[in-house]
Amino acid sequence: MARKLALLVAALVAVASPATALWPQPRNITTGSTALRLSPGFTISLSSIDGAPEDLVQAVTRTESYIKTDKLGRLVVGRGSSDVAAYSRAKTLSQLTLSLSHGAKVQSITTEAQKPLEERDEAYTLTVPSDGSAAKLTASSTLGLFHGLTTFGQLWYENDGTIYTMTTPVDIEDSPAYPYRGFMLDTARNFFPVSDILRTLDAMSWVKINTFHWHVVDSQSFPLEVPGFTDLAAKGAYDPTMVYTSADVQNIVAYAGARGIDVMVEIDTPGHTAVISQAHPEFVACAQATPWSTFANEPPAGQLRFADPSVTQYTTELLHAVAEMFPGTMLSTGGDELNTNCYDADAETQSLLKSTGRTLEEALDVFVQAEQKTLASVGKTPVVWEEMVLVQNVTLSSDTLVLVWISSDDVKAVAQKGFKVIHAASNFFYLDCGGGGWVGDNPQGNSWCDPFKTWQLGYTFDPLANLTTDEAKLVMGGQHLLWTEQSGPENLDPIVWPRAASSAELFWSGAGGNVTSALPRLHDVSFRMRQRGVNSINLQPLWCALRPDACDLNA
Amino acid sequence: MARKLALLVAALVAVASPATALWPQPRNITTGSTALRLSPGFTISLSSIDGAPEDLVQAVTRTESYIKTDKLGRLVVGRGSSDVAAYSRAKTLSQLTLSLSHGAKVQSITTEAQKPLEERDEAYTLTVPSDGSAAKLTASSTLGLFHGLTTFGQLWYENDGTIYTMTTPVDIEDSPAYPYRGFMLDTARNFFPVSDILRTLDAMSWVKINTFHWHVVDSQSFPLEVPGFTDLAAKGAYDPTMVYTSADVQNIVAYAGARGIDVMVEIDTPGHTAVISQAHPEFVACAQATPWSTFANEPPAGQLRFADPSVTQYTTELLHAVAEMFPGTMLSTGGDELNTNCYDADAETQSLLKSTGRTLEEALDVFVQAEQKTLASVGKTPVVWEEMVLVQNVTLSSDTLVLVWISSDDVKAVAQKGFKVIHAASNFFYLDCGGGGWVGDNPQGNSWCDPFKTWQLGYTFDPLANLTTDEAKLVMGGQHLLWTEQSGPENLDPIVWPRAASSAELFWSGAGGNVTSALPRLHDVSFRMRQRGVNSINLQPLWCALRPDACDLNA
Repeated sequence: MARKLALLVAALVAVASPATALWPQPRNITTGSTALRLSPGFTISLSSIDGAPEDLVQAVTRTESYIKTDKLGRLVVGRGSSDVAAYSRAKTLSQLTLSLSHGAKVQSITTEAQKPLEERDEAYTLTVPSDGSAAKLTASSTLGLFHGLTTFGQLWYENDGTIYTMTTPVDIEDSPAYPYRGFMLDTARNFFPVSDILRTLDAMSWVKINTFHWHVVDSQSFPLEVPGFTDLAAKGAYDPTMVYTSADVQNIVAYAGARGIDVMVEIDTPGHTAVISQAHPEFVACAQATPWSTFANEPPAGQLRFADPSVTQYTTELLHAVAEMFPGTMLSTGGDELNTNCYDADAETQSLLKSTGRTLEEALDVFVQAEQKTLASVGKTPVVWEEMVLVQNVTLSSDTLVLVWISSDDVKAVAQKGFKVIHAASNFFYLDCGGGGWVGDNPQGNSWCDPFKTWQLGYTFDPLANLTTDEAKLVMGGQHLLWTEQSGPENLDPIVWPRAASSAELFWSGAGGNVTSALPRLHDVSFRMRQRGVNSINLQPLWCALRPDACDLNA
Repeated sequence: MARKLALLVAALVAVASPATALWPQPRNITTGSTALRLSPGFTISLSSIDGAPEDLVQAVTRTESYIKTDKLGRLVVGRGSSDVAAYSRAKTLSQLTLSLSHGAKVQSITTEAQKPLEERDEAYTLTVPSDGSAAKLTASSTLGLFHGLTTFGQLWYENDGTIYTMTTPVDIEDSPAYPYRGFMLDTARNFFPVSDILRTLDAMSWVKINTFHWHVVDSQSFPLEVPGFTDLAAKGAYDPTMVYTSADVQNIVAYAGARGIDVMVEIDTPGHTAVISQAHPEFVACAQATPWSTFANEPPAGQLRFADPSVTQYTTELLHAVAEMFPGTMLSTGGDELNTNCYDADAETQSLLKSTGRTLEEALDVFVQAEQKTLASVGKTPVVWEEMVLVQNVTLSSDTLVLVWISSDDVKAVAQKGFKVIHAASNFFYLDCGGGGWVGDNPQGNSWCDPFKTWQLGYTFDPLANLTTDEAKLVMGGQHLLWTEQSGPENLDPIVWPRAASSAELFWSGAGGNVTSALPRLHDVSFRMRQRGVNSINLQPLWCALRPDACDLNA
């Protein structure tokens, strides 16, 4: 009952699926076809690392646990029963030894993960011999070792109680193509308990995503408890049970750091701030004004009166307090979808502009510069949405990172202005697109950004399209994003996974990946995630997942 | 970060949301605005029903339990705290009394639910006074009483330990607009444990869906253990753990029946049968032939050699055995997407046709008539997909129910031939559409039936479009459908709920519903389902869900 042929399109030439199911695919890898069993007494040794940091010790324990509890049957007909002959004759591996390259400074994974993008060292080297002699994982940072442990954990399958791999010897030299590989979650349209965020951080780390872009607050709710500004959550959270306390944030930041993930929090300003009017009505223009579509891109309307010096002071103090909650170096002040009707209709703003003789754009420039000055004072790199560069054209510090969301076509213009770019385009990476529209009183109810953004679309994205060599250097990486107007804990895992893994490989392994050879590995990602408690969905009938390429367009 | 205005369309005039959040909306209802509390000692009395059947007794117990454990806060700002003043002064309700109308035969809900569509009596009358005197539920069948209990259970909210309603007195006279209100699940592309099916049956019953169309087997797997034909599942199931045993089926059928749901099983023939070749290669033409797209609409290819008398005999015996597993009167023999290339290339079929002097169509006609004769012999009403009528044009008994799936435009042609119609159109009711394509080696990977089928689209469907008065009488109802190429236990709830509730109301309450007044009630459905353990998703930010119409297009 499904006219699959209705969309027959020119097909790529299918290529053989790789020997291993590693995701993201290492930059340099050679594998053999010799089976190797894991010894029941297998251990991962840190003995060569003096003063191994606690988060590395825990990562080792977690890796040992995953290898023993994944119990993932290989995705072939028979789920590995056909491997018995090979692995029953195989040698057994008793140890993986970790070591840091000579002279490397021993710092925690967390410390390494929270460094500025340019200073992170995520590279590692992994060798797994076929003869049972110790496997070796080396790196010049604990962050590199962490990524190597993640890779090592993806090598193993289980059949009938035996844990084994079919592809030794393995030789890997790996490092990311791009320093920024993120995932954005909106916790303001709908709330997610801490446990959902922690589970998501685990899944992110399994595919080497290194940045959690946390769009924590927006016009609908303010679930973040900020020291000194607790009235914002007290009056702006959906419910007292729907608040991220300071302790929750510490927990999330630490959990992320220990998994090689930096938390980039976003306090979206001056737009998307209606909720601030709950605690400070005097700071917000057109709060809940109607018709909302005249004053905002989505309900409720409400934007900070940035022309007001007291609002600027309040905002910078708030940013300062938020900055102190997050040890990472990137912090987003948003800046998207600013609506000028809101200010044209706001008497206070108009009189403020008149008294200062400033235009709205000039006042915004003053406001944004004050924000950036505050971030600089606490050592944060500012991050903004593309409109700040392409629409409002405000003065931004040259190190500002720009999130391009409206269209990937805008990347060129941002790069031409010399700003660093993070790919976050709605036409490639919005996980909510194509799921139907959420605005009421709409008989059709289609999504504003139809169609659905498939994993294939994100996977085949070209991060450097139309860029000169110099402009290309400004591309820091990219991410998938989940806006949650129609999401919540009920569909978090299935709407994100395994799709978000497609950009994780794109920005680690580099562009040019082939969807046909990627699919069997992506099945592996999804099935392994399920074994670890993440509800990652099926991309094909199991019949196809067990028969690589049998369900290809022209198979 | 979401250009919601990009799809501004002409908006309907918003209408006030109804006083109650009942779903489906009763055909005739009047409600007041007086609060009423539920007494801590509230009970539902069956004393007036001599020999109340066990499934009715259990339904009463379940309803009492839901009312006390739902703990659903009313979807308004403050989640019901503003109702305290009203309900604290309110009278308390101690009892709901159930009774059958004079002379009604006392039969189990299960027996009533499994009757032929025309013979089912689903009507009920419910009154809930404001003065605390007993609420009354009457019907002329236990099935009607069951639906009334479901409605009664939707009246109640909880705040601070008090269970109450704000809308008494309530007077309801209710009965469905259409006798068939279904949901179809495909358990062949990917497998679902029994627990997922039971949970889905519960959710279906909460919105008065009365038919579980179980597309249990297909070319990819045969998870149904059929007495006398156990080799089909033994060799055709994905895994020994992925089989529905006879006991499982009995459990599912009984669970459904007790919830007013008939199970309409489908054994799709003669296409979609590649898996039968695992046990009986001699019965299947072009089994796993490649390129699959030449021989089937999706991999793997393989269709029954219906021109072979031994295949016809085997198929009818299989259908007979399956029919005995399912007490309901409807059974689908499928008949969709028959591929003639498969038979043109099949030497056995060609020689059989030559020896009998029959054309392929004539041989198919003989085969289908044999199937229908078998169903008639065991008292089953045959159900087929539309191609049997519009493409193969075989001889079908006049009582055959026809599932229209290719396009709602085909309904007219089926009705013109005098057959009863079940709406199941892919352009309105396919829950998998718009979620991306699953066929491999497809760089774009869009869905064959983009875009996503929103709840609004299904809700505003006109079941009688372009039909004459006589043709309209042939419309039995309709359903949402989930094909599971990209689904599994991981996303079953979020992909189905609350969307499938939109057709449930359409076919119970009748066409002409308004999406604007429906949305607040649909939020209620979704939130109540979550309280009962079904992961039904958000349709809007909580900010909107608590403020009816505040997020409407022109609000």
